[in-house]
Amino acid sequence: MNVKKSHIQIRTTKRQEFYEITEEIRKIAKESGIQEGIITVFSPHTTAGLCINENADKDVLTDMIYGLDKAFPDDPKFKHMEGNAHAHLKSINLGSTLSLILSDGLIEMGIWQGIFFCEFDGPRDRTVKIHIMGE
Amino acid sequence: MNVKKSHIQIRTTKRQEFYEITEEIRKIAKESGIQEGIITVFSPHTTAGLCINENADKDVLTDMIYGLDKAFPDDPKFKHMEGNAHAHLKSINLGSTLSLILSDGLIEMGIWQGIFFCEFDGPRDRTVKIHIMGE
Amino acid sequence: MNVKKSHIQIRTTKRQEFYEITEEIRKIAKESGIQEGIITVFSPHTTAGLCINENADKDVLTDMIYGLDKAFPDDPKFKHMEGNAHAHLKSINLGSTLSLILSDGLIEMGIWQGIFFCEFDGPRDRTVKIHIMGE
Repeated sequence: MNVKKSHIQIRTTKRQEFYEITEEIRKIAKESGIQEGIITVFSPHTTAGLCINENADKDVLTDMIYGLDKAFPDDPKFKHMEGNAHAHLKSINLGSTLSLILSDGLIEMGIWQGIFFCEFDGPRDRTVKIHIMGE
Repeated sequence: MNVKKSHIQIRTTKRQEFYEITEEIRKIAKESGIQEGIITVFSPHTTAGLCINENADKDVLTDMIYGLDKAFPDDPKFKHMEGNAHAHLKSINLGSTLSLILSDGLIEMGIWQGIFFCEFDGPRDRTVKIHIMGE
Repeated sequence: MNVKKSHIQIRTTKRQEFYEITEEIRKIAKESGIQEGIITVFSPHTTAGLCINENADKDVLTDMIYGLDKAFPDDPKFKHMEGNAHAHLKSINLGSTLSLILSDGLIEMGIWQGIFFCEFDGPRDRTVKIHIMGE
């Protein structure tokens, strides 16, 4: 069994932003030399999330931020004093961890899919942890 | 370490549908011969998702589709020209990947739980990737 | 390859409650002796979920319950006779499974992050399954 650990440094530039990290993860997977295994992607932040979705039409990303704002709006009844409770809420709904399949040295993904770091309280410096286990 | 890779072919028949795949995954797990490990279930589609929930009362599935439509409704302000931005939104909230525990040759699951492929822009032909790693 | 399996018993005391299980998981990870691997956390319940979020300000947890109630409210049109369809809906949005990275014997987590069992239909006796695979 082999393990390869790495991370991606991100500097988000907007308050809310879907930042694609597909190519960085593909590069780490390729350099690991691991052919068959599981890739765990982890965000150590409480006001951001991870997701997999369309990376072809950039309008989809704009719609995701708009739709999440409608489902999980800021609210005067939130008690958290930092004023970013909506960002925590989006974070728990999208999640902080993704498991990907590494098969024949390639990440199993659909042709329209990309992997995104989802900033909900930026701009900030962020890190995404990558862990590959297999052989 | 052993790896078993497989997939499930699905033909959804409705615009929105929770399609149960528990038995197919159990069969793949059994045939793998792996006793202890991790099962990664992955949907390569951007307008569908995966979830684990009750499979006893079919009304729950109807309620899930109704409740998701309320939380993530279609909206005239969505810019994505295909008109299915709501389906992408549901996809990122439910997620495209599940990790299951394989223990003593059986999938760890609650008595009321089933595994569902969640179609949000059907009917379509869909695929779910299954990856089992362990020994 | 080594596998360590364990579980956490929880008795929730409220209708809805975010119950922190970070320290229990850290203890299981430490006792496993596994240094490098993947921790799978699994909830076998259909009216509860799992998430990772802030554990410093307890107001965040109150806000999460309030925000989830707003996004996924109870509704007279729900057909499920047990009256807890909203709890199933929150369960599928947060998810029932988490994958964590175990690195140098420690769980990779951000300084503000905690791991929570999210009760949406309590009070009840609950169990969380923990599976660690690595070496």
